[in-house]
Amino acid sequence: MKIIDKEILSVDTPRVLIDYDVLMSNIHMVHGYAERYQVDVRPHVKSHKSLDIAAIQLEEGAKGLTAAKVDEAAVFFNTATKSFTLAYPLTEEHKIQRILSSTRQFSLDMNLIVDSEEGYEVVALMCKRLGIKLKIYIKIDVGLKRCGLPPGDPRILRIARKVLSDGHLELAGLLSHAGHVYRAGNIDEVIRIARDELKILFRVRKYLLDYDIETKRISIGSTPSLLAGIDLQGISEIRPGNYVFMDRITWKLGLIAPEQIALTVMSTVVSKNKNHFIIDAGSKVLSSDTGAHGSKILEGYGLAYPAEKYLEEDYRMKIISLSEEHGFIERPDFDLPLGTRIRIIPNHACPVVNLTDSLVVHSRNIIRHVWKVHARGKVL
Amino acid sequence: MKIIDKEILSVDTPRVLIDYDVLMSNIHMVHGYAERYQVDVRPHVKSHKSLDIAAIQLEEGAKGLTAAKVDEAAVFFNTATKSFTLAYPLTEEHKIQRILSSTRQFSLDMNLIVDSEEGYEVVALMCKRLGIKLKIYIKIDVGLKRCGLPPGDPRILRIARKVLSDGHLELAGLLSHAGHVYRAGNIDEVIRIARDELKILFRVRKYLLDYDIETKRISIGSTPSLLAGIDLQGISEIRPGNYVFMDRITWKLGLIAPEQIALTVMSTVVSKNKNHFIIDAGSKVLSSDTGAHGSKILEGYGLAYPAEKYLEEDYRMKIISLSEEHGFIERPDFDLPLGTRIRIIPNHACPVVNLTDSLVVHSRNIIRHVWKVHARGKVL
Repeated sequence: MKIIDKEILSVDTPRVLIDYDVLMSNIHMVHGYAERYQVDVRPHVKSHKSLDIAAIQLEEGAKGLTAAKVDEAAVFFNTATKSFTLAYPLTEEHKIQRILSSTRQFSLDMNLIVDSEEGYEVVALMCKRLGIKLKIYIKIDVGLKRCGLPPGDPRILRIARKVLSDGHLELAGLLSHAGHVYRAGNIDEVIRIARDELKILFRVRKYLLDYDIETKRISIGSTPSLLAGIDLQGISEIRPGNYVFMDRITWKLGLIAPEQIALTVMSTVVSKNKNHFIIDAGSKVLSSDTGAHGSKILEGYGLAYPAEKYLEEDYRMKIISLSEEHGFIERPDFDLPLGTRIRIIPNHACPVVNLTDSLVVHSRNIIRHVWKVHARGKVL
Repeated sequence: MKIIDKEILSVDTPRVLIDYDVLMSNIHMVHGYAERYQVDVRPHVKSHKSLDIAAIQLEEGAKGLTAAKVDEAAVFFNTATKSFTLAYPLTEEHKIQRILSSTRQFSLDMNLIVDSEEGYEVVALMCKRLGIKLKIYIKIDVGLKRCGLPPGDPRILRIARKVLSDGHLELAGLLSHAGHVYRAGNIDEVIRIARDELKILFRVRKYLLDYDIETKRISIGSTPSLLAGIDLQGISEIRPGNYVFMDRITWKLGLIAPEQIALTVMSTVVSKNKNHFIIDAGSKVLSSDTGAHGSKILEGYGLAYPAEKYLEEDYRMKIISLSEEHGFIERPDFDLPLGTRIRIIPNHACPVVNLTDSLVVHSRNIIRHVWKVHARGKVL
């Protein structure tokens, strides 16, 4: 970590900034919430892909890490935790083999998810073949309609029984991701979806118990549902990702104030025409996301402020279109000279991190570190 | 370059594939077209960001390279060409200083663009301060309404005169990018926009000539307008980028057949539900683009085929939504087992390359090389 005592205004643009104090406060808030309910926090690394941020999360009490991709998870295997959940259905031998080899090499506590009998078969086969033990969560679809078995599906019971009778596998419990919370129109709907998620999981737990199958753990994820502050009794762990950064989506959902957004993008006015300021942040920095999980809840591609007027209402501008390396800001009733620094709240923080190799970390607008995005662009 | 004689079906997914034969044929087609009109080709590296592809373009007759970002251009300075156009308005001293230092270090033939008097002033100041000479194109807005001076703007003449009287600057000519061609509904509209671009530039050239100012060169860019095959008489050079790959946009515009698309993404069915096949290619591989320059001309996020039925009409499927690491394919009237390889034609090739560290290059579906995406994620 390099120490650089310069103003964030001095960065070359476009550049992704992380406000360290806000990042820490977000981490404390969510970890504090989890502590109140004695629930483990197992952050999803897909949002930050950073060894530095993972180290902070673990120092602050995270009980392990979550990843979606095998190659991304691998970046974190030799760190301060041995406990991982790969919250993605693996159905191919070579990916499972990679996970199992690492599980052995680093003595990991490895949790996989299964949402099909075919998926179970291949995981079971590979564990048996390599003589390695791991834990299985059955993934339940709580409404996103992506991966997971819907509640009431008889395969839930069949897979649970198979796992229980398998010498190499342990039934960890049930796991879900209520990603459809990103399609909620307001905080009440967020709360409703978050409560429904728990109801569905408790119903599946009850159903399994009717067949004498104990659900040891229930693992849920998604930043919005946690920010809604619902009662977590009966839950074992949460797997938020985005909470370290927050973004325009979480703000739009009414879950945070803009001061809680840790990730911003610094850019510069490079040209002007009658209708637009043109800035040097385009889709290759901000992404074209207008929501998460295809939710499209936002208009435009981010909110922009002259950097020296950041978060001042009267100076808020809209990015209404993006080329790859240019953003189009609707001209407000004030003018800005070419070269003016523009600070942006992106729609969705996660893809923004995925588009850069490093993050400029500042405290009260003074640059303190440059953190690498270690797990970006990895392939097996 | 590693030589790997495996089927593309064997790649770990998601992975970006380049069909070498199609790539070469695309390069030959556009370079042949330029040759017919004795026009220079100066490819834009933003699409591929690859030293390997740039080397091919230069071998095939490209007269230099174009880049948008200083840090991206820098990756190509020590290669088989000395001639560069930075087709992006630079208004900041430190960026211009970086370009000028490299111009001196590598003895480059450097062309910058200017679209404001303030921009001219800072370029002129830095060239004088460092005692370095370079060429200036005046950027003309031909309808994209992004950067560039609109035809008829008196600043065009003022800047031309200032450049001509500056000891360090040479007036290269006029430069444009008709990016609004991506908003065209069909090939006729593409042709109309491409012809209008030339008319506008010729009008500006005539206007300058009325003041005894000679426009040495006219440089235009954009793959669609070139694919439309308009008459290039009077043009000095073209700066296409996307043409090496092509994508669903160029296909949709009616400019190519799908067999001319060199870039595809290999993915895998990882889960299934009632309505969707879930694949392991999401917005972090495909991007959320539904057009270029915010054009939104496409529905969904790419076309998908079972890899062994690639381009067979009856097997074409639609990717209708994306999470970060998952794609949702609308279930067709046939079933596919988990683990099936899915080959995707992305909406927009350029952001896809920007999302990966390497490209798997194949010939007739046999992997031949893995090329690095050298200029991705660079910062000053």
